[in-house]
Amino acid sequence: MNNFGIGNNTFVAESARIGNNVHIGHNCIIEDRVFIGDDTFIDSNTIIRQGVSIGRGGFIGSNCIIGEYLMDFCKDRQYHSHPLSIGVNVLIRSGSIIYAGSTIGDHFQTGHQTTIREKANIGNNVSIGTLSDIQCSCKIGNYVRLHSNVFIAPLSVIDDFVWLFPHVILTNDPTPPSSNFVGVHIHSFAIVASGAIVMPGLDLGQDCLIGAGAIVTKSVEPYTVVVGNPAKSISDVRKIKNKVTGKLVYPWREYFCNYMPWEGIGFEAWFNSLDLNEKQKFTISDINI
Amino acid sequence: MNNFGIGNNTFVAESARIGNNVHIGHNCIIEDRVFIGDDTFIDSNTIIRQGVSIGRGGFIGSNCIIGEYLMDFCKDRQYHSHPLSIGVNVLIRSGSIIYAGSTIGDHFQTGHQTTIREKANIGNNVSIGTLSDIQCSCKIGNYVRLHSNVFIAPLSVIDDFVWLFPHVILTNDPTPPSSNFVGVHIHSFAIVASGAIVMPGLDLGQDCLIGAGAIVTKSVEPYTVVVGNPAKSISDVRKIKNKVTGKLVYPWREYFCNYMPWEGIGFEAWFNSLDLNEKQKFTISDINI
Amino acid sequence: MNNFGIGNNTFVAESARIGNNVHIGHNCIIEDRVFIGDDTFIDSNTIIRQGVSIGRGGFIGSNCIIGEYLMDFCKDRQYHSHPLSIGVNVLIRSGSIIYAGSTIGDHFQTGHQTTIREKANIGNNVSIGTLSDIQCSCKIGNYVRLHSNVFIAPLSVIDDFVWLFPHVILTNDPTPPSSNFVGVHIHSFAIVASGAIVMPGLDLGQDCLIGAGAIVTKSVEPYTVVVGNPAKSISDVRKIKNKVTGKLVYPWREYFCNYMPWEGIGFEAWFNSLDLNEKQKFTISDINI
Repeated sequence: MNNFGIGNNTFVAESARIGNNVHIGHNCIIEDRVFIGDDTFIDSNTIIRQGVSIGRGGFIGSNCIIGEYLMDFCKDRQYHSHPLSIGVNVLIRSGSIIYAGSTIGDHFQTGHQTTIREKANIGNNVSIGTLSDIQCSCKIGNYVRLHSNVFIAPLSVIDDFVWLFPHVILTNDPTPPSSNFVGVHIHSFAIVASGAIVMPGLDLGQDCLIGAGAIVTKSVEPYTVVVGNPAKSISDVRKIKNKVTGKLVYPWREYFCNYMPWEGIGFEAWFNSLDLNEKQKFTISDINI
Repeated sequence: MNNFGIGNNTFVAESARIGNNVHIGHNCIIEDRVFIGDDTFIDSNTIIRQGVSIGRGGFIGSNCIIGEYLMDFCKDRQYHSHPLSIGVNVLIRSGSIIYAGSTIGDHFQTGHQTTIREKANIGNNVSIGTLSDIQCSCKIGNYVRLHSNVFIAPLSVIDDFVWLFPHVILTNDPTPPSSNFVGVHIHSFAIVASGAIVMPGLDLGQDCLIGAGAIVTKSVEPYTVVVGNPAKSISDVRKIKNKVTGKLVYPWREYFCNYMPWEGIGFEAWFNSLDLNEKQKFTISDINI
Repeated sequence: MNNFGIGNNTFVAESARIGNNVHIGHNCIIEDRVFIGDDTFIDSNTIIRQGVSIGRGGFIGSNCIIGEYLMDFCKDRQYHSHPLSIGVNVLIRSGSIIYAGSTIGDHFQTGHQTTIREKANIGNNVSIGTLSDIQCSCKIGNYVRLHSNVFIAPLSVIDDFVWLFPHVILTNDPTPPSSNFVGVHIHSFAIVASGAIVMPGLDLGQDCLIGAGAIVTKSVEPYTVVVGNPAKSISDVRKIKNKVTGKLVYPWREYFCNYMPWEGIGFEAWFNSLDLNEKQKFTISDINI
């Protein structure tokens, strides 16, 4: 252990394993059996609970709680083992609360005051905006971007390269209140614009576009644009043009590459470089590449 | 006083009365004249301000502020007495802020980063989800469940056994901006699904069902289902069937009993066990029991 | 320096300049080159980062982060200078996070757990509600009131005396995802009711009224009332009457004056007292004064 700094009044449990060149701010609490990789920065007032593992190179803002208690602890106040594994080079902004019992990939990023409950399975290069609330037992793929204040109900499944804009809600109870939950499934490259609400159990097809404020009551076909309350199909995304340039803009993967794995080479070249298994994840009947 | 533990750097005022078997974490501040009942667990970094009373058996998560200052303190920085009484066996999750000057019942539960302003009157067995924002002078009955990120405007009245799902908004100003506020009144057993907005001063009748994303501009009759923007009546809840099982599911109190007082015996038997006064709270002209 | 109190375990950097009669609570961190004016109250657990300047008379609640790191710090963990200047007599409630690199005027007020990103330019007498999320590079005038949980996308421009009610969303990407952002512009005296969503690049005209839950897809003319999904014009604000009193209530500036600069004298007298430049800010072709 060779830290470049531990702040005042910070408690680090003896059984914690802290890498090289780790900074820990003031008033932090690092509990038993925590693992923190090299070159990690942990800002002041943050709590990292028992058994959390954080890969190298991460940045954890102030006032975070990483490895938050599940209900079992609240009931009997005894430690129950729910490992939380967080990948390398993450950026978890201040005020975020991440429960124990989840798996989170590399290059993960959050805004402020996010909540991620237990049994989440989150891939690599995922970004979750300020105030977003990811309920338990969700599956989120790679390169998924959730903007601010998104609500993801338990059992939701979000495939790779999906975009959810501010205040989107995914629901899971067809006849509330009940205990017959059925999650939404959003397929790759789909876009859900601000404030849209998706009813329980629906499929949003690959490359579809859900308009802002849409109340989605039926599954949506690939490439389809829906808007309204209730949402109705109005177009095919491949017909939408940028109003200023007059150019086609969808499917977005062919026109937008910031922070995407095809940045610099284009979607098609990237797709062709994938192995067969990976390709099949992104292949629908009429995929136009 | 016989604590099983007080953390490092925690301040407990001399005039605070702390019960037996109380745990207080690190960096907490327990101010003057606080009362904490036996078997309470208070996690690290939490502030409990002057004059707060918390019954036995509660769990208060990290980073909470219990007894937050009202405007009078912010103005003159002098303590003004606004008692806050919180019942037994509560579970207040991390990051929550509860103002001084309210009354909260037993078995109360919150998610994370909730805000409850002053002059709230909250019954027993109420649950308030992550990020929910309960403004001042609201009245909430018993067994009410508010999901994540619900906004309750000042002067709202919510009767027993009401369900509000994520991002529901109750408003109170018919001609904004004004100071002629008039609260919404939601009657027992009503359900408001995700993202619905209720206009000021409306009544939502017993056992009604407001669909997701509905913009409610007129009062809703008992048992009525409304959807859309603006919301229109489309059905009677008693005609709705679960799409998988084909069975009737409403009024929900006859079909759902998790954590309800009729769990194990059924609604009808529970209702019949009530005394006359209690029964009248839940009686509408055509109540079908 | 003549403080009336610094709490336990609080760190104040030597290069910080602290005014007279300043209170700083427990567990605070006041970093290098911070300036805090006279008569300021800073509650416990609050962090004020390098180079922040706060005028006299302010109240900063607990658990705030003032001068939060921009992305450059998260990347290289080196201090980069992004001055944050906050005016006099502000009230920043607990849990709020304000980034470095913004300018905020006098008499500023926030609710709890607000987030204000970098490059914000905020005038005087602005109030921002609990959980509101002001993204980077926004311009907000004077006497603007944002209620709870408002989302303001980057590049939004909000003129003086605008009201945004709970859960309003201003968007900025016409073809998401893209990097061709174009902000909304809301003109003086406009009112956007709860849960409305405004599409990118639109203008909301002076004194217009956007109904609750409206999905605004076209710019809105001055004095116009729009409602629905998509929003459609239904009236002129000057025809709207209070249902109880039967009296006209809009444009609101003629009927409502709480906390406004025309309180006590009326809008017209106040307007007539302005100099020519100021008057032109509030003049539209048919302004009815």
